[in-house]
Amino acid sequence: MTQPQKFPAGNRRPPHNRGGFKPRRPRHGGPRPHQPHPPREVLPQNGSDEKPIPQLEQGNIRIVPLGGVEEIGRNMTAVEFGDDIIVIDCGFQFREDDTPGIDYILPNTKYLEDRRDKIRAMFITHGHLDHIGGIPYIIDRIGYPPIYTRRLTSVMIKKRQEEFPNLKPLDIHEVEKDDSVRVGNIKVRFFSVTHTIPDSMGILIETPYGIIAFTGDLRLDHVDGIPTEREEEQFSYFKDKKVLFLAADSTNCEKPGFSIPERVVQKNLDDIIESAKSRLIIGTFSSQLERIMRMLETAERVGKKVLVEGRSMKVNIEIVKHLGLLKVSEKTFIGSEQLEQLPDSKVVILATGAQGDEFAALMRIAMKTHKYVKIKKGDTIVLSSSIVPGNERAVQKLKDNLSRQGAKIIHRETMDVHASGHANRDETFWIHQKINPRFFMPLHGYHYMLRVHADIAKACGRLEDDVVVPDNGAVIEIREEGTRLVRLKENAPAGLRLVDGFAIGDIQEVVIRDRTVLAQEGMFVIIATVNPKTGKLRKSPDIISRGFVYLRESQELLQQARLIVKKTIEESAHGQQPVNFDFVKNNVTDAVARFLFEKTNKRPIVIPVVLGV
Amino acid sequence: MTQPQKFPAGNRRPPHNRGGFKPRRPRHGGPRPHQPHPPREVLPQNGSDEKPIPQLEQGNIRIVPLGGVEEIGRNMTAVEFGDDIIVIDCGFQFREDDTPGIDYILPNTKYLEDRRDKIRAMFITHGHLDHIGGIPYIIDRIGYPPIYTRRLTSVMIKKRQEEFPNLKPLDIHEVEKDDSVRVGNIKVRFFSVTHTIPDSMGILIETPYGIIAFTGDLRLDHVDGIPTEREEEQFSYFKDKKVLFLAADSTNCEKPGFSIPERVVQKNLDDIIESAKSRLIIGTFSSQLERIMRMLETAERVGKKVLVEGRSMKVNIEIVKHLGLLKVSEKTFIGSEQLEQLPDSKVVILATGAQGDEFAALMRIAMKTHKYVKIKKGDTIVLSSSIVPGNERAVQKLKDNLSRQGAKIIHRETMDVHASGHANRDETFWIHQKINPRFFMPLHGYHYMLRVHADIAKACGRLEDDVVVPDNGAVIEIREEGTRLVRLKENAPAGLRLVDGFAIGDIQEVVIRDRTVLAQEGMFVIIATVNPKTGKLRKSPDIISRGFVYLRESQELLQQARLIVKKTIEESAHGQQPVNFDFVKNNVTDAVARFLFEKTNKRPIVIPVVLGV
Repeated sequence: MTQPQKFPAGNRRPPHNRGGFKPRRPRHGGPRPHQPHPPREVLPQNGSDEKPIPQLEQGNIRIVPLGGVEEIGRNMTAVEFGDDIIVIDCGFQFREDDTPGIDYILPNTKYLEDRRDKIRAMFITHGHLDHIGGIPYIIDRIGYPPIYTRRLTSVMIKKRQEEFPNLKPLDIHEVEKDDSVRVGNIKVRFFSVTHTIPDSMGILIETPYGIIAFTGDLRLDHVDGIPTEREEEQFSYFKDKKVLFLAADSTNCEKPGFSIPERVVQKNLDDIIESAKSRLIIGTFSSQLERIMRMLETAERVGKKVLVEGRSMKVNIEIVKHLGLLKVSEKTFIGSEQLEQLPDSKVVILATGAQGDEFAALMRIAMKTHKYVKIKKGDTIVLSSSIVPGNERAVQKLKDNLSRQGAKIIHRETMDVHASGHANRDETFWIHQKINPRFFMPLHGYHYMLRVHADIAKACGRLEDDVVVPDNGAVIEIREEGTRLVRLKENAPAGLRLVDGFAIGDIQEVVIRDRTVLAQEGMFVIIATVNPKTGKLRKSPDIISRGFVYLRESQELLQQARLIVKKTIEESAHGQQPVNFDFVKNNVTDAVARFLFEKTNKRPIVIPVVLGV
Repeated sequence: MTQPQKFPAGNRRPPHNRGGFKPRRPRHGGPRPHQPHPPREVLPQNGSDEKPIPQLEQGNIRIVPLGGVEEIGRNMTAVEFGDDIIVIDCGFQFREDDTPGIDYILPNTKYLEDRRDKIRAMFITHGHLDHIGGIPYIIDRIGYPPIYTRRLTSVMIKKRQEEFPNLKPLDIHEVEKDDSVRVGNIKVRFFSVTHTIPDSMGILIETPYGIIAFTGDLRLDHVDGIPTEREEEQFSYFKDKKVLFLAADSTNCEKPGFSIPERVVQKNLDDIIESAKSRLIIGTFSSQLERIMRMLETAERVGKKVLVEGRSMKVNIEIVKHLGLLKVSEKTFIGSEQLEQLPDSKVVILATGAQGDEFAALMRIAMKTHKYVKIKKGDTIVLSSSIVPGNERAVQKLKDNLSRQGAKIIHRETMDVHASGHANRDETFWIHQKINPRFFMPLHGYHYMLRVHADIAKACGRLEDDVVVPDNGAVIEIREEGTRLVRLKENAPAGLRLVDGFAIGDIQEVVIRDRTVLAQEGMFVIIATVNPKTGKLRKSPDIISRGFVYLRESQELLQQARLIVKKTIEESAHGQQPVNFDFVKNNVTDAVARFLFEKTNKRPIVIPVVLGV
């Protein structure tokens, strides 16, 4: 095994204790420095949140990506022209390692909140959470603009909104790909794209200087690297059009060639479903709706019955059944009580949780905490999914637990049972050539992915000055009658906005920082009662500590700490009349933090409570 | 462990939610349930730590993997025969997601500690930390047995031991691959294997029934899937030998085919070093010593100068220079002060930190916190490394930050600039055929990897009963004169042993659990002073909270919480003479926890301190 080979002593630890207490290097034997979380990115140099953003000049077009260009997720972009703003997508992102305890990360919509009177509409490209997840948290802050999207997406948004009964009803308009919509003075059209969920579309905004095109998430359907007739037909729309500006999906453009066609995956899954002699448990993302629909159809065709496990999967299947998109008989679905009545070879279980999420169906099955479904020796598990970065170990545990119980596992490294919904490099190249825009901005990805995408655009003939690699909050303008692309030095606010329980806001960095330290080092609270007249302790101080050391085995440490507290307080308070409690507390913090670090090499958050009674 | 982690004594620990306070599912809107950490594995059913392990019977051989078979890392196995125990390897593992704040995870060596009089020697296969890292933490617990290993490994162990000056000197014996060693009544031989660090070897233990072979970490050197002459020669040793039992590396045996030969990687790196016109910064693991040596030789050959950044890399290079394994002139190395005196095209910087570790050289360079090295537009960065699971986002940030500053990045997905040191499936197959053991046990990997390896062994002709897939602490015996493989129902202790600051031990689960909760939900301490005679509060309670909500914006919440505390204490204490403080505190915990959850949907650790004054 090749691991980072680290020799500890010379390494520095992050100072997170304050006051006069200087962190020192461990002198020996020491653990390596804690590396709890990857540091956030170096901030871009060209701009500051504090400078006011100039008003948009008449005739110019402004494009502001509010999220999704420094990460995968929380996609949202504003387009401003004349007196109108329209918004493309409204997603959220799941938490990262450096936001512990957080539920979701939202795009920062301050720019829109400050201009809510100009917002004419929101357009949603498709029904995945990184494109719709932010709506319930954001829609009221920006004045409930009307939402335009296709049928399935519209139902998914409404379904989700039901969980927020305190919000006003949404004003949703269903559109079809050949429709055009006028909002304010802006005309918007749509085009159909291939992704992993039905009704995915791109957005086309007409301007006097040409079309502004947003692809949304997309890939190409192809045979051996040759896009199908249908793709050719979809993209033929752009043939004689003047495309002023393109904003396109960068998620997979680092990956070489063409992606695995979904057709190959479906064929493999068809074969597995058809031929499995054992019970079959297939784990996949509930967002992979097209694949789920196909698997249900195949199961019905070969006379197998399907148990659906996992709430989001059930909800999504209900929606496509309701919309008539899925044509499978009710008889194909079984309840868990029927599991034992059928021969194993007739049973397919479709489950969420292929990411190893603790509470999802497949993990509960693996952990033997699922109410009905228990793994039997000989079961075949198919993990029809990729591993979302950060979930590698959870998925490893999932595989370990399933295989320990005698299941056979098929996963994407052993067979093509998953394909991504995002275009690889050569697909991206093809898309650029078809759309052939004057200006280009990569969307949907971490910064490096956007850079790679920008290089593809340049390889397709874009000039250096006609490509902009944005950050969240970048203010980009097309000026001089559509002939010049400019990134302003001013930025829209881009600070983190988090959903944390019921709290939704942007000023919680201190909370997050504390959580990070608490997770690594724990905390140490000292409660001392002092006679304010004499400066003497009333009794031996109380100590509360969590997440620091195992207290049962640290009685001597606690005893010494109590003595240090007593000594420090009484010496600090000596001769003071009245006692300066802040001074005393600072001294206690320093003395205790230093002592604990010397004895344990840990730096818990030390909090002194000194009560004058 | 459910011990209270709280003082003063008498305070009962709120198990996060408890008492009458029933956790509820969020009814609406709701954030998804917290999924902080992948749950640990389901424990194997066949055995319990509590049953005493029977004495080893005369003539039987016992093999106990103490670590490294439910994870990658902390490799250690005991082999017991007659009155002798020998130990193979003594590694540690870096922390996992579910052990926050921890420095390292050790193998549980209780089995050895209980039998230290029988331990005759420790054999170390090679110098990587997952094979040597545990020595300073474990050696004194098992009575400082003599250590046998090859030259480089021996120097690396000694170098590391210098950082633990409080330990006794080690009794290290250098061996060479053709040596044989007698320890107790056991004779041990060695064989050379290909890995990524010089002096890697396998261990051969002679028994009356045949050889017990440990491969250590290994891969094969090959050309297009045909192992080289040298490999053939190494493994020809086994041709006429009777191998009773094989324990072999499983790390990569899920991966199909043969791994990329290191020769290909070296060739690519040679080309990059030779042809780079810009400054070249190469990030790799300091444990990739063979590759590092090659890069230094190439740089010298083409007249470039090398700045080495990162302490572990410097230490390792010093060691191979000192041993004469690296033959590069001192003039090839430069200090940071010479960086600006040389043309960029002559400069190679070799740096640690390709994993995005916060404090390693490359990350400091990327984050602009490195003292001397700043990225210039046009720099070429080579990430000659894989991504250790869990580091994906850190590496993404690294790439984002480097590319943002104008560097071009070459990584393993764009070119073969990294190869693993572990055998893929077809290599593993070849190794099995050469060694052709009677019995087989996979080592070095997560459970599922071991299962896959076991299937390979069966495909090579092993019978079901002759293959055992172990867990940490499994007690495996070869009985009936080497003809039967048995896994006892008893297990050696396998609880987690952690290095956490200066603490090394196995009873910290409550600490880890608290850290996990603190990281997600934070804490909420209430300090109330009560007149023990009247049961009335002396003053409004103090509240200390960290990592929960942003207090500045939660004044009303705090005010309401204070009122609830006051009301709960005074009602609970009403009529009591003297006040039953435990009863009062429990009521406060319940009332406050319920209130906070209702208002915030968060469940901080609530700790009441009620002082009678």
